[in-house]
Amino acid sequence: MILNPDLVPPGHLSGPSRAIRRGGRSNRLAARQNPGGITRSNRQFRNIPAYALLTDETLAEIEQQADWIGSEIGVEFRGDSEAADLFRQAGASVEGERVRFDPGHLRALCSTAPAEYDMHGRDGVNGFTLGGDHLVLMPGYGSPFVTDLDNGRRYATLEDFQNFVKLTYLSPWLHHSGGTICEPMDVPVNKRHLDMVYAHLRFSNKPFMGGVTSPGRARDSLDLVRLVFGDSYLDDHVVIQANINVNSPLVFDSTMSGALRIYAAANQSVAISPAIFGGAMGPVTQAAVIAQTHAEIMVGIALAQLVRKGCPVVYGSFHSTMNLKSGALTFGTPEANLATMALAQLGRRLRVPIRCGGGQITASNSADGQAMQESTSSMMVSVLSGANQIWHAAGWLEGGLTMSYEKFVMDLDHCGMLLRMIQGVNVESEAFGRDAYLETGPGQNFLSTAHTLRHFADANYQSELPEAGQYEAWLENGSPTAEQRANGRWKSMLAKYEAPAIDPAIDEALRETIARKKSSMPDEWY
Amino acid sequence: MILNPDLVPPGHLSGPSRAIRRGGRSNRLAARQNPGGITRSNRQFRNIPAYALLTDETLAEIEQQADWIGSEIGVEFRGDSEAADLFRQAGASVEGERVRFDPGHLRALCSTAPAEYDMHGRDGVNGFTLGGDHLVLMPGYGSPFVTDLDNGRRYATLEDFQNFVKLTYLSPWLHHSGGTICEPMDVPVNKRHLDMVYAHLRFSNKPFMGGVTSPGRARDSLDLVRLVFGDSYLDDHVVIQANINVNSPLVFDSTMSGALRIYAAANQSVAISPAIFGGAMGPVTQAAVIAQTHAEIMVGIALAQLVRKGCPVVYGSFHSTMNLKSGALTFGTPEANLATMALAQLGRRLRVPIRCGGGQITASNSADGQAMQESTSSMMVSVLSGANQIWHAAGWLEGGLTMSYEKFVMDLDHCGMLLRMIQGVNVESEAFGRDAYLETGPGQNFLSTAHTLRHFADANYQSELPEAGQYEAWLENGSPTAEQRANGRWKSMLAKYEAPAIDPAIDEALRETIARKKSSMPDEWY
Repeated sequence: MILNPDLVPPGHLSGPSRAIRRGGRSNRLAARQNPGGITRSNRQFRNIPAYALLTDETLAEIEQQADWIGSEIGVEFRGDSEAADLFRQAGASVEGERVRFDPGHLRALCSTAPAEYDMHGRDGVNGFTLGGDHLVLMPGYGSPFVTDLDNGRRYATLEDFQNFVKLTYLSPWLHHSGGTICEPMDVPVNKRHLDMVYAHLRFSNKPFMGGVTSPGRARDSLDLVRLVFGDSYLDDHVVIQANINVNSPLVFDSTMSGALRIYAAANQSVAISPAIFGGAMGPVTQAAVIAQTHAEIMVGIALAQLVRKGCPVVYGSFHSTMNLKSGALTFGTPEANLATMALAQLGRRLRVPIRCGGGQITASNSADGQAMQESTSSMMVSVLSGANQIWHAAGWLEGGLTMSYEKFVMDLDHCGMLLRMIQGVNVESEAFGRDAYLETGPGQNFLSTAHTLRHFADANYQSELPEAGQYEAWLENGSPTAEQRANGRWKSMLAKYEAPAIDPAIDEALRETIARKKSSMPDEWY
Repeated sequence: MILNPDLVPPGHLSGPSRAIRRGGRSNRLAARQNPGGITRSNRQFRNIPAYALLTDETLAEIEQQADWIGSEIGVEFRGDSEAADLFRQAGASVEGERVRFDPGHLRALCSTAPAEYDMHGRDGVNGFTLGGDHLVLMPGYGSPFVTDLDNGRRYATLEDFQNFVKLTYLSPWLHHSGGTICEPMDVPVNKRHLDMVYAHLRFSNKPFMGGVTSPGRARDSLDLVRLVFGDSYLDDHVVIQANINVNSPLVFDSTMSGALRIYAAANQSVAISPAIFGGAMGPVTQAAVIAQTHAEIMVGIALAQLVRKGCPVVYGSFHSTMNLKSGALTFGTPEANLATMALAQLGRRLRVPIRCGGGQITASNSADGQAMQESTSSMMVSVLSGANQIWHAAGWLEGGLTMSYEKFVMDLDHCGMLLRMIQGVNVESEAFGRDAYLETGPGQNFLSTAHTLRHFADANYQSELPEAGQYEAWLENGSPTAEQRANGRWKSMLAKYEAPAIDPAIDEALRETIARKKSSMPDEWY
């Protein structure tokens, strides 16, 4: 039983949310009709414009540079002759593993990707729209460690993984259950994907990411979701997403391109994610990082379209900077933020859903001031840039090495604030409060006006974390930092968790299939 | 002797920085001619566009609501019949202390305010431009307490005040020396302004704010700057700024309007600053807070123009939200951020320099994760909204009750990042790094390319704070938080401080004048 109404997961996507929206005007009208603020069905609507950093002229220059990279340097598909064949048949120039594209060719190949599509949860309720005026948040991805203030930092286990799936399910501010939120290091490498997909399917009902670390694991993931959704459902419904990393610079390895082809063939969401640290996987200058990212994404989207025209994709990016003196990776930096802003614009010009920037990312080892300065900077810029999907929206520490339980709930709070912010300013006449001015006057306070009483309950976002409170009381209480005050929050959430219902026969089928697949292969630990 | 070149204060404002700029094109060209990044003379140039939250149509609706407030409710000038007389002569309706304006009248009265002007430091070097494409950052204002990790929180003293003036002088990221950075509680209330103005003049050479807490203190402040700059210099040079708070809702008291009239008569910068917490000094809805703020600012600017046509002003705002359950003030919230964005747009439509939003503000009691999440959120939004001046850019804790030495240097670091960010993306052909791609190729790293070697030194902003470093070493070192790692930074800055030179005769005149003024009145402690 979920007692806190704020913890009720987002509701059913009603008709309007599935309609293609352009320009935000209809959303703005929707907001006016619902001046009370957030409702379950508008928790992912964006009523504010995306920030436009660069002029169209400059964006066109960057696109030309991406075309130059595609035609003069090209991209290598290592060990995947099927991908190379698809490109050859489409008219690209293929020499060995190197594929080159005439200027404009990549953009043309991307043009069949949908601008917007729905992803469905297993209960038909917890879905969302990717693209257009929608924003989808998901937790961190890929950490081998977890940490909390009680037990410190240690290797993540399957129990940790399940805990983060549960916390994500409980939060109205995360729409997407994530993928490898943390690595269940206590499960053999070649069997982890089975337990992770099961956890997403059993302990949540939000859409999620499947295995990509080998073509077989991709197929296993699809087999499991088919047990839940039915075979034919996937032909015209997107229920699972694949994180396809580019081996920047300009390489797709067969693991990634193989997984891409499997998910694309199943008509499921393929998110192309170059990860470029300027100076290492690309030049040290931002214009180059932006153009290279754009080129690499277009290649991935093009391959998905060649596998299956109309395949749903995400224009993804992840980029950060290095301290070029110490070699340390740095996050939330001005250079990375500028790249986020520019890439969001380039993605919009390609008319596909955008994952831009990093989310709440940081190099910090604990959920301290540095962690939240970097995370907030990166996250605010991603949101204002017009991202449709933001990964790593909660939990990240240590450049992604660690998921922190405390930072997870601190980040969640910021997600809630940002989802409130993107609803924009209500400018209905009621919001101007003329009756309050007529009731008071210069020098009088508004606390007890009828207008304040009508609106105070939902006027402002309410934080879910305990306040520090007044200084003297806080000092007596041991001066707890935000991280320390957050410690109780994730525990109380987990204590309240109840798994969403599942048909026992389907659960049984999932468990049997997983047991069979596991017993069919020896454990691999690396 | 300042050893760290990063600590050299901003350089002389060269010719182009004084020219009126519109649209940013000339700046963008300037940036291209100087691809290396920040130089001393461009540390306040904005090469990125301001974010536009609302449409012109919506902004016009808000302006109509401000006009409604001005005409139907009006503003009270309490105990200042001279101000009321000026408005009466200008055609406003005056009944007792209440002044009302026909729709459009306030905007017309504001039209003589300059869109952009320079403020000059005493050495003719450390000045800046307010307005247009420029951003000026200044430290916190008004805290009765200070805190640091060695000595904890205590009442601020004159020594603390001087320390923050020195730290501000040393930082290239703060252009403005501030005003009452913290309250020197060990100096009598009626004499503090003399010691504060002296500290700004003696320990810095950046422009600053003078006393405003009585008309006499305003006059004293101008007397002291005249000793340094000369009597006639102030007629056509702006060297000092006044923080004119509105007693929201819709009241100017005689202290504030009196100080306003004194600074305006001397042709110095008058910054009008309503401070509205929705639900208390205005309705709880953001549209109302925005419109009321706009109305109150216009009244203040109008008065300054009636005192002296062409008087330099700042369109200021400060607004925050309350937790409407606990009554606690909250900062960096989505509602406050939306108001910041909208007010920046309204200020631009009035064609005057804008101070928007709060800066690095927080309710937190320490420089923890909450502090930096709130501060970063508010600061990022202020910068992207197109603020020309940001107050409280460094040091704030506890809703302004406390200036923290550690948070000050943590905030400074973020200021440096943001000043880098507003320079935008360099898209010169060199920044595309084609030679680096030709030198490497798919799958190869860029660390040792000629392009990386040409650019690595200035490619990325370099943090001035110690890195946390690798996890195991950090753990062995006692897991220091960012706040703890910042502790040494302000000390090393103060240790390197040397006061800028001053003509001994001028210094003597300042000291004598202050001593004479101090001895002319008994101490007042409240």
